[in-house]
Amino acid sequence: MIVVGEKINADLKSIKAALDKNNKEIIQELAKKQQEAGASYIDINTGVFKENEVSKLKWLVDVVQEVTDVPFSIDSSNAEAIEAALKANKNGKPVINSITAEKEKYNKILPLVLEYDAYVIALCMDNNGMPETVDERIVIADKLVNSLLKEGVKIDDILLDPLVRPVGSGTNYGVCAIEAIKKLKAQFPKVKVICGINNISFGVPARKLMNQSFLVAAMISGLDAAIMDSMDKKLMSTIFATEALMGKDEFCMNYQMKFREGLLEI
Amino acid sequence: MIVVGEKINADLKSIKAALDKNNKEIIQELAKKQQEAGASYIDINTGVFKENEVSKLKWLVDVVQEVTDVPFSIDSSNAEAIEAALKANKNGKPVINSITAEKEKYNKILPLVLEYDAYVIALCMDNNGMPETVDERIVIADKLVNSLLKEGVKIDDILLDPLVRPVGSGTNYGVCAIEAIKKLKAQFPKVKVICGINNISFGVPARKLMNQSFLVAAMISGLDAAIMDSMDKKLMSTIFATEALMGKDEFCMNYQMKFREGLLEI
Repeated sequence: MIVVGEKINADLKSIKAALDKNNKEIIQELAKKQQEAGASYIDINTGVFKENEVSKLKWLVDVVQEVTDVPFSIDSSNAEAIEAALKANKNGKPVINSITAEKEKYNKILPLVLEYDAYVIALCMDNNGMPETVDERIVIADKLVNSLLKEGVKIDDILLDPLVRPVGSGTNYGVCAIEAIKKLKAQFPKVKVICGINNISFGVPARKLMNQSFLVAAMISGLDAAIMDSMDKKLMSTIFATEALMGKDEFCMNYQMKFREGLLEI
Repeated sequence: MIVVGEKINADLKSIKAALDKNNKEIIQELAKKQQEAGASYIDINTGVFKENEVSKLKWLVDVVQEVTDVPFSIDSSNAEAIEAALKANKNGKPVINSITAEKEKYNKILPLVLEYDAYVIALCMDNNGMPETVDERIVIADKLVNSLLKEGVKIDDILLDPLVRPVGSGTNYGVCAIEAIKKLKAQFPKVKVICGINNISFGVPARKLMNQSFLVAAMISGLDAAIMDSMDKKLMSTIFATEALMGKDEFCMNYQMKFREGLLEI
């Protein structure tokens, strides 16, 4: 399972405050902790700064890569900010998070994917906004994948995100997410499927519990990568258990090792 | 989700001790707590007593139904003990746990299912012992279901148990359980699928964690009923979360109610 650490996101008050003051220590501590806890990528998002997004994102890349060596997931819809981050990047092949089938956005982001040979998260969304059904997602995914391939993006570099919506706001949104993951995986077996775990639980109580159950359901439905809190020990433990259940952990040796290392939390 | 409370099992030392001394209080307390926690059936097992199994099981039925009104799951391979329990039963339609395709066992248990109009758990096992593969399980299930139907058992009264084996003793046993549940459900849509959750984690550490992940995986694969510890609040919470994710909980109203009642544990 590929884990993208989601915590350096200026939508979070504490991160916004640290960025306001250019407080390196808080950011670096969080970056290090996420990597130590198992994040294979560090997501960085400074969208909230709007006018300063370019400089803030560039600053983040510089600061985070002083203390980590995992690649970035550059979470922005501002092409200029993404490019500034890509230029400053020294931490291995980055992820551009994200492109969509919205025409303007697609045309802005695509050249960056190609020029910087980045991975790209393709969100199942187009000019009609958030899709409602599984089939709408598949149609958009099909359009996106075919178009990206035609433009020269390698199939291994595409990650599809079905766009998970909160189960508290739509009774069927859990089923929709799970079915979309299954269908995306069936239709594009070489493309990785990614999603934000936390999205499912927005607006309900005991969010961590809902996130855990959703993570299992998503994994056994074919999820390859999760944007999530890698420092949430229970969520990480859930990954180790589910990998064992999926036959990906020979005689549960990794699970047992994690237990001995004190990394399993029930 | 149908929950069968598994705790009154004389394989457990504390239960064995209580039964040795005919200690009603301990047993009744446990029975009440299981029902309160959400068990729809109370499993009772006195197999360890061998010679006294008949009287011990009968005693259990009498004692438990003094304080609970949910039906029993009579967990025995001793036809005489099962019949004693069935005769003493006043708590609604019971479950006979279990019949198999082992010829002798089948012939002994079947008449009880018919005579007492009980539900029956049909274990995917025959004279060749524990099945290894998913397909072996399906073949046995097919034989069992067809045979039970032919003998006059109603399809609604059959619960198929794929026989979950510990993932710590076979890397593929998690996949096997999950795939077996899916295939049983696809092949026999009117038959309920049941399994023991705890079986998956035998021999690995942090069993509750493994059980939780397995429960989600099993539920979204089609599991209708679980033999489990209904007093394990996290496991019960996992059911509420997973039901919401499966679209079975309108706007998460039940999930939110459980939260307000203090019944969700993360």
